[in-house]
Amino acid sequence: MAKDKKLVEAITSMDTDFAQWYTDVVKKAELIDYSSVKGCMVIKPAGYAIWENIQKELDRRFKETGVENVYMPMFIPESLLQKEKDHVEGFAPEVAWVTHGGLNPLQERMCVRPTSETLFCDFYANDIQSYRDLPKCYNQWCSVVRWEKETRPFLRSREFLWQEGHTAHATAEEAEERTIQMLNLYADFCEEVLAMPVIRGKKTDKEKFAGAEATYTIEALMHDGKALQSGTSHNFGDGFAKAFGIQYTDRDNKLQYVHQTSWGMTTRLIGAIIMVHGDDSGLVLPPRVAPLQVMVIPIQQHKEGVLERAEELKAMLAKAGIRVRLDDSEKSPGWKFSEQEMRGIPIRVELGPKDIEAGKCVLVRRDTREKIECTLDKVTETVEELLDNIQHAMYTRAKAHLESHISDVKSYAEFQDAVENKPGFIRAMWCGSEECEIKIKEDTTATSRCMPMKEEEAVADVCVCCGKPAHKLVYWGKAY
Amino acid sequence: MAKDKKLVEAITSMDTDFAQWYTDVVKKAELIDYSSVKGCMVIKPAGYAIWENIQKELDRRFKETGVENVYMPMFIPESLLQKEKDHVEGFAPEVAWVTHGGLNPLQERMCVRPTSETLFCDFYANDIQSYRDLPKCYNQWCSVVRWEKETRPFLRSREFLWQEGHTAHATAEEAEERTIQMLNLYADFCEEVLAMPVIRGKKTDKEKFAGAEATYTIEALMHDGKALQSGTSHNFGDGFAKAFGIQYTDRDNKLQYVHQTSWGMTTRLIGAIIMVHGDDSGLVLPPRVAPLQVMVIPIQQHKEGVLERAEELKAMLAKAGIRVRLDDSEKSPGWKFSEQEMRGIPIRVELGPKDIEAGKCVLVRRDTREKIECTLDKVTETVEELLDNIQHAMYTRAKAHLESHISDVKSYAEFQDAVENKPGFIRAMWCGSEECEIKIKEDTTATSRCMPMKEEEAVADVCVCCGKPAHKLVYWGKAY
Repeated sequence: MAKDKKLVEAITSMDTDFAQWYTDVVKKAELIDYSSVKGCMVIKPAGYAIWENIQKELDRRFKETGVENVYMPMFIPESLLQKEKDHVEGFAPEVAWVTHGGLNPLQERMCVRPTSETLFCDFYANDIQSYRDLPKCYNQWCSVVRWEKETRPFLRSREFLWQEGHTAHATAEEAEERTIQMLNLYADFCEEVLAMPVIRGKKTDKEKFAGAEATYTIEALMHDGKALQSGTSHNFGDGFAKAFGIQYTDRDNKLQYVHQTSWGMTTRLIGAIIMVHGDDSGLVLPPRVAPLQVMVIPIQQHKEGVLERAEELKAMLAKAGIRVRLDDSEKSPGWKFSEQEMRGIPIRVELGPKDIEAGKCVLVRRDTREKIECTLDKVTETVEELLDNIQHAMYTRAKAHLESHISDVKSYAEFQDAVENKPGFIRAMWCGSEECEIKIKEDTTATSRCMPMKEEEAVADVCVCCGKPAHKLVYWGKAY
Repeated sequence: MAKDKKLVEAITSMDTDFAQWYTDVVKKAELIDYSSVKGCMVIKPAGYAIWENIQKELDRRFKETGVENVYMPMFIPESLLQKEKDHVEGFAPEVAWVTHGGLNPLQERMCVRPTSETLFCDFYANDIQSYRDLPKCYNQWCSVVRWEKETRPFLRSREFLWQEGHTAHATAEEAEERTIQMLNLYADFCEEVLAMPVIRGKKTDKEKFAGAEATYTIEALMHDGKALQSGTSHNFGDGFAKAFGIQYTDRDNKLQYVHQTSWGMTTRLIGAIIMVHGDDSGLVLPPRVAPLQVMVIPIQQHKEGVLERAEELKAMLAKAGIRVRLDDSEKSPGWKFSEQEMRGIPIRVELGPKDIEAGKCVLVRRDTREKIECTLDKVTETVEELLDNIQHAMYTRAKAHLESHISDVKSYAEFQDAVENKPGFIRAMWCGSEECEIKIKEDTTATSRCMPMKEEEAVADVCVCCGKPAHKLVYWGKAY
């Protein structure tokens, strides 16, 4: 009973309180639950199944580019973490420390990995000897820990799931190529699978990863106009190689340092899917990443033949490779509809005695709620086509939302006005000084998201902050 | 150069020093590397790819039985670990403790999960309310940490990868059914996929899992005659439910405790594959779990047309769904042969100018080294058939090895003689007292492995240790 009550409560409307709407969806679509471990979440079946689909598709794409999976220890001895100066400064304040093993104190404390550059470097230092050993393109799927003060499900959690790729190359050019290749792979994945358009760009020095020479990012725009960094790819140059002594003998038998990259995507993507596509009835999942694509919901299921025909319909769709389930529970159809909507299942098929008599069924799109009548002999191809349409329509809508939420500003007053009144990205010129970047952040809470990789026309010729000559076009915005 | 030297060194022979042979294979087949974190290993691509195949197949089988995947936090607050008395006694001495988050000490220390019963129970206590919520059949793929003193790659490691299933049921019968179902699933998986016969049995009370009412196990026999516990399935009854207050209202609106199970398999299985099938040339992988099933090795590859034909051959096999690679590196064919053998790739295809002229190639089985000539137009079906033959032959050989290494003993003198002189399992009667079990272990180092689930004829009618009447048939053995 307690359960039933929970479900009929409407979720908060997005327009009323976006943050509360997000929390409601995450809970009521049964993606996560809070745990007794502060700042850590339980990822429930409906949430984990989305992650499994993300993994499957990303992993396939990685392997097509020659990436191999490995597994490194989850602990990093303190001395190892300290080998690269910028890196330790960036991460040491937010790691969890293991000090005891069983009943005894450890000789050296270890942190739970916040990221594994140091472990991969330590490994590469032994494993790489000759140019024949290069490139190394390794990836691992694991969880990492960052001791955040404020946490939100999927977006910022003390423990989260991710993949981290770590590569080593003979030349700087090759490392840069791999960095860009993986960023593009991430962007294509977001656009093609998650129906989520992104801005591909480079981070400013201030915002780059601790220890990196350059960080590239994809930035997505959430429904409330805030940006979400959705994947990053770092070029380390030979900085880590020098700190860890990762050298190889080249074809001329000379010792050279390797050049490295790393790149990662996380369960944060599930938060992005929610905030890009969701609506006031709950989750809306793009068909390609939806664990369930179709829910068959029988009407008057107690009447003779209804459940049998619904079962047949389900079997037919399943046979065509569509991820489908039949809801033959004892709840009312209306209840089942709102559950299917809350969970974001792209299509529901309604089938009752009258439909069966007329040799048809009704398909309802989750994204637009459009109803489509369909004769029973055409269901499979209609559903397949509809899934495709939904996938593309969702991308098109998200793209239109992104494009209509970019403000070009020339003056600081315009900038401040945009931050206040125009949710979305702000395109403005920047002189390149960290002072201006800090001032903007302090004055407005907007941060530099990225400098776009695609050539874009300059908005002005002076810095939006200090007025000095400026050549750098930057996307700014409030961000998660 | 250092690398080349490593490879030509022969590995230690199994008969000379089995433990050293194991270590050599693990290193030279490039399955793992040692890491800077004592007792933890780096799982390299060749090792991790085996684990990926194990995961894929087990996960498919789990899901067929209605299991759903989830993810729980990796940390357990100390107070949560302490809720079930036997459980905390079993695990507290070997956990790693996190005491600091970032720069601050934690209010309550947490351990890194050695297993997640307590986290699942904590979750179920909130998530389960009514009989409609049951059963819950959840599983997670993750790593766990146990602070072992002595470690060996795959077999005993401070951190290892595994899956842990945790289910909750309305009745004791249903929980027992699930416990047995998963044990049989494990056994079938080992036999069908890993070509590894196992004894299915129940653990004695002394050997059961901390907090369980009953533990079932599958025990495999390694080439050196030692047993390896390869998977376990536990029935908790309502013990954890009472400790954690996991109750549901039944159909009559009465409060009842749930009945729970858990079951796990680990990267230890990779150790089992090595020690059941390996030989003095290295790893021998069963085709169904082998990341690469066929290596095409061209002979005189610099001659015109050889590489092209080899490439065609590879493409043809790949098209048929066979996992195949072409070794077109600049090493000599002999070198490539021993690499392929070391890595345990089930079949190599040799193809040189003379073969091409004759319209044939040579297939060489890794398990028996048998050479099979095959016309090029028949390669795909011949390889497919051969992979099947190898899979079955490997199982048959391992089964014969197991069966020929079981000693039935009636007296304590026979028992002691068998432990000394007859590697393998010892079948002997036991009165059921822990004293006898302890005495046997202290006198001989052999432990009770399991009481077989399949009905087997009694070896005698008195306990092999104390001579009192005994009805329990036990498999004993030295174990990893």
